[in-house]
Amino acid sequence: MKSEIVAVGSEMLTPWRQDTNSLYLTERFNEIGVTVAFKTIVGDRRKDLVGAIKTALGRTDIVVLMGGLGPTEDDLTREAVGDALGLALRRDAAQVAALHARAATWRIAMPQNNLKQADVLEGATVLPNANGSAPGQWLDVTFEGYRKLILLVPGPPNECKPLFDGECLPRLKQIVPARHIAKRTLRAAMIPESQADKLLAPIYTTYKDVETTILAHAGDIQLTLLCANPNAEQARQRVDELATRLEEALEDWLYSSEGESLEQIVLYYLGLRQSTLAVAESCTGGMISQRITSVAGSSRSFLGGAVVYSDQLKSAFAGVSTDLIAKHGAVSAEVAEALASGIRLRTGATLGLGITGIAGPTGATDDKPIGLVYIALSDPTRTEVMDRTFRGDRARVREWATQQALDLVRRRLM
Amino acid sequence: MKSEIVAVGSEMLTPWRQDTNSLYLTERFNEIGVTVAFKTIVGDRRKDLVGAIKTALGRTDIVVLMGGLGPTEDDLTREAVGDALGLALRRDAAQVAALHARAATWRIAMPQNNLKQADVLEGATVLPNANGSAPGQWLDVTFEGYRKLILLVPGPPNECKPLFDGECLPRLKQIVPARHIAKRTLRAAMIPESQADKLLAPIYTTYKDVETTILAHAGDIQLTLLCANPNAEQARQRVDELATRLEEALEDWLYSSEGESLEQIVLYYLGLRQSTLAVAESCTGGMISQRITSVAGSSRSFLGGAVVYSDQLKSAFAGVSTDLIAKHGAVSAEVAEALASGIRLRTGATLGLGITGIAGPTGATDDKPIGLVYIALSDPTRTEVMDRTFRGDRARVREWATQQALDLVRRRLM
Repeated sequence: MKSEIVAVGSEMLTPWRQDTNSLYLTERFNEIGVTVAFKTIVGDRRKDLVGAIKTALGRTDIVVLMGGLGPTEDDLTREAVGDALGLALRRDAAQVAALHARAATWRIAMPQNNLKQADVLEGATVLPNANGSAPGQWLDVTFEGYRKLILLVPGPPNECKPLFDGECLPRLKQIVPARHIAKRTLRAAMIPESQADKLLAPIYTTYKDVETTILAHAGDIQLTLLCANPNAEQARQRVDELATRLEEALEDWLYSSEGESLEQIVLYYLGLRQSTLAVAESCTGGMISQRITSVAGSSRSFLGGAVVYSDQLKSAFAGVSTDLIAKHGAVSAEVAEALASGIRLRTGATLGLGITGIAGPTGATDDKPIGLVYIALSDPTRTEVMDRTFRGDRARVREWATQQALDLVRRRLM
Repeated sequence: MKSEIVAVGSEMLTPWRQDTNSLYLTERFNEIGVTVAFKTIVGDRRKDLVGAIKTALGRTDIVVLMGGLGPTEDDLTREAVGDALGLALRRDAAQVAALHARAATWRIAMPQNNLKQADVLEGATVLPNANGSAPGQWLDVTFEGYRKLILLVPGPPNECKPLFDGECLPRLKQIVPARHIAKRTLRAAMIPESQADKLLAPIYTTYKDVETTILAHAGDIQLTLLCANPNAEQARQRVDELATRLEEALEDWLYSSEGESLEQIVLYYLGLRQSTLAVAESCTGGMISQRITSVAGSSRSFLGGAVVYSDQLKSAFAGVSTDLIAKHGAVSAEVAEALASGIRLRTGATLGLGITGIAGPTGATDDKPIGLVYIALSDPTRTEVMDRTFRGDRARVREWATQQALDLVRRRLM
C-alpha cells in the first residue's frame, strides 16, 4: 500500500522551518510495509488544502494530514477534508466536555474559538490526544470508487508522534497486509565515494528484495538495508546475507555493523583495550572533544584535552617548543606530532591525538593550501602523523578533519 | 506569482534524508516577491513524476524540479517533463562535446549512459552547470491556456544553489513584477519563550504588512521581519520601525540586530574591548570552543582552552586544587569559579570561562539533578558564578549550557 504525508502550515513554506515529523512517520510506515510515495507541504489556504487532499487521495491509499487542527482561524484541515469529501462537521459533545475539563485543569478560561477543536467529520473516529487539546481523526472512506484511509493528526512533534504510534499504527496493522521488516545499518569511514559506489553497487543491486539506501556525509557513509517479507526469518536472512557481503567488500573501512557512530566505536575500543585518550586540537577547535563527549559515559575513557588555538597554548598545554613552531610553522607535521605526544604526556593518557591545519577561509600560504590538515596519534611506543587536504568551506574542512582523526584512533585500536 | 518546488528522488522518501535545497530556493524566491505555495517530494517513478509535474503546473505559475538529471536509469526528470507537456527530447551536440571535455579533464572514459545528460527538451534553454555534468533547463510554456515557467535544476546542493542564483534568478527577475523586499533579523538569548510571546506578539501582530517569523532553539530566538512593497523606501521604513519597537521590548535579551550569531557578537565585543578569552569546559566537552572557533578570524580574540573532562585535568590545566574538588564535588559553584580563574591565569587571557555540570543521562545525586550546570566568568577584578538547571536530554542540556555561557560573556562585555 502507498501513502502520502501532507504537512499543513504556512510556516513550513518559509526559508526557516521544515517538516520533520514526516521522517518519523515514514520510518513507522516502512516498518509495517507501507511505502511513502509522496510528501506534500501546503500552507493554511483552504483552497490549496482542498486541492492537495484531492490530489493525495487520487494517487495513494493512505493520506496523513499533519497539522491545522488547532483553534485558530488558520487551522483549516478539518474543514478542507469536509470540502474534499463532501462530509459535514458536527460538534462532538464528549470533545467539548474534554476541552472544558482541560481548561479547568490549567485554571484558564476557555476561549470560544477553542471549541472548533471539538468538530468531528461525519463518520470519523476520534483519536484521543494525550499531549494536546486537538484530537486526531480517522476516516475510512470511498473516494472515486476506491477505499481510502485519511488520518488527521496534530502538527506539534510531541503530539503527532505518540498519537500516530498509539492510535493510528494499531488500526493500520489490522488493515495493511502483514509483512515482516528486517533492517541493518552498516557504517564506514573515509572511503572515497566513487570507490564505495564501485565496490558496493554490484553487490546490493543483485538483492532486488532488499532496499539499500546510502547516505554520505563528510567522510562517513551509512548503508541501511531493509527487507520486507511475509516470513520474518526469510527477511532477516536476506538482510544478514547482504550485510555480510557488503561488510567483506568494505574491509577495514567498515567501523559499525549495527549503526553505532564513529565516536561510540572509538569509545568502545578504548574501553576494550583499557586505554584512555586525550586530544590537543587546533584547527578543529573542540569538535573532536565535543563529538566524543556527546556519548554518555565517555568520561570512562576520555580524559579531555586542550583547544590550543593560539601558539602560546600549544606550548603551555601540550609542551610544544616555540622553536619548533618557529622553525616549521604551527601547521606542520612536526607540530602535530609534538601536540600528540605532548598532550599524552601532560595528561597521562594512553593515547594522545594532535591536530593542526588551515580551516580557511584565510591563512593559506604558497606551500600550504586551505584545507591542509596534519593529524598525529601518539602512544608510548610511537607517534604517527598523516597529512590530508580537504576541500570545502571552513565548516566542511573541520568536519572532515574531525572524522579523519577519529578514524585514525579507531584504526590504531582495532 | 506562486511557485512550487518539486524535489525528485526516492532517497528523500526514506526516514533518513530530507530535501534541504528548498529552504534556500524559498529564500531566493521570497526576495524577488515570489511565494512558494507548495512543496512536493516525489520518488524516481516516471508515472508518479509525470503526475506530480501536471499537478504542480495546474496550481502554480513557476515549477522548479530539483534532481533526477543525472546519468542513471533512475534519473527521469527530463523524460517526465517531456511526457507531461508532450515535448520531445533531442540530444544536444554542444552538451555532448561538453561531457566529453569534462571526462577528458578528469582523465576518465565516458560511460555511454552519461550522454543522456545532453538530452534537451524541445524549446528549452540550457542552463550551464559549473559544478557538475548535468546542465539545468529553462522552459517557458503554455499549459492549459496559461503561461508557465518550468525550471529543471540539479539536486546536489553545491550544483543546485549556484545554478539557481546564476542562471535562474536573473531570468526570473525579468519576468516577475518588481517588488521590493526589506528584511531584518533580530536575535535574543535566554529569554523565556512564554515571556517572548507575551512581549512581542502584541507588537508585531499590529504590523499586518510585515511578515514576522519566530524561530526558537535552546536559549536562542530569531525573529525575521519581511516586508514586500512596490516602494523600496516604504518597505525599509516599515521593517525598521517594527524592528525598533521589538528591540526596545527585548531590552538586553537582544544581542543582534542584523542576524549575527551569538558567537560572532561575543567575538565582536572581545575585539572592541581588546580582550581575549579562554575556556575550561567540563560538561560541554568542547562545544563552547567549537562554536567560537566556527567563526573565521576567531583566533584574534580566542586563545583556546581546556576540555577538563576528568578531575585530574581540572587540576592539571586549570589549577583547580584536588582538595576543592573533594570538598565540594566536581559539579559545584566553587569548582566552576576555580576553573574560570584558573584558565584565565594559565593562559594569560583577559577573561576566563569555566563550566561544570551534569549533562546526563546518569550522574545525578540527591542534591544535584541532571541538567544542573555551574557557569563562572572571571576577569582580573572579579569572578561571578551562576547555576542553572536545564531540562531535556544530554544534547539539549549541553546546547543550553553553551548558549548560557556565551551569553554570560556577552553581558560582561557589553
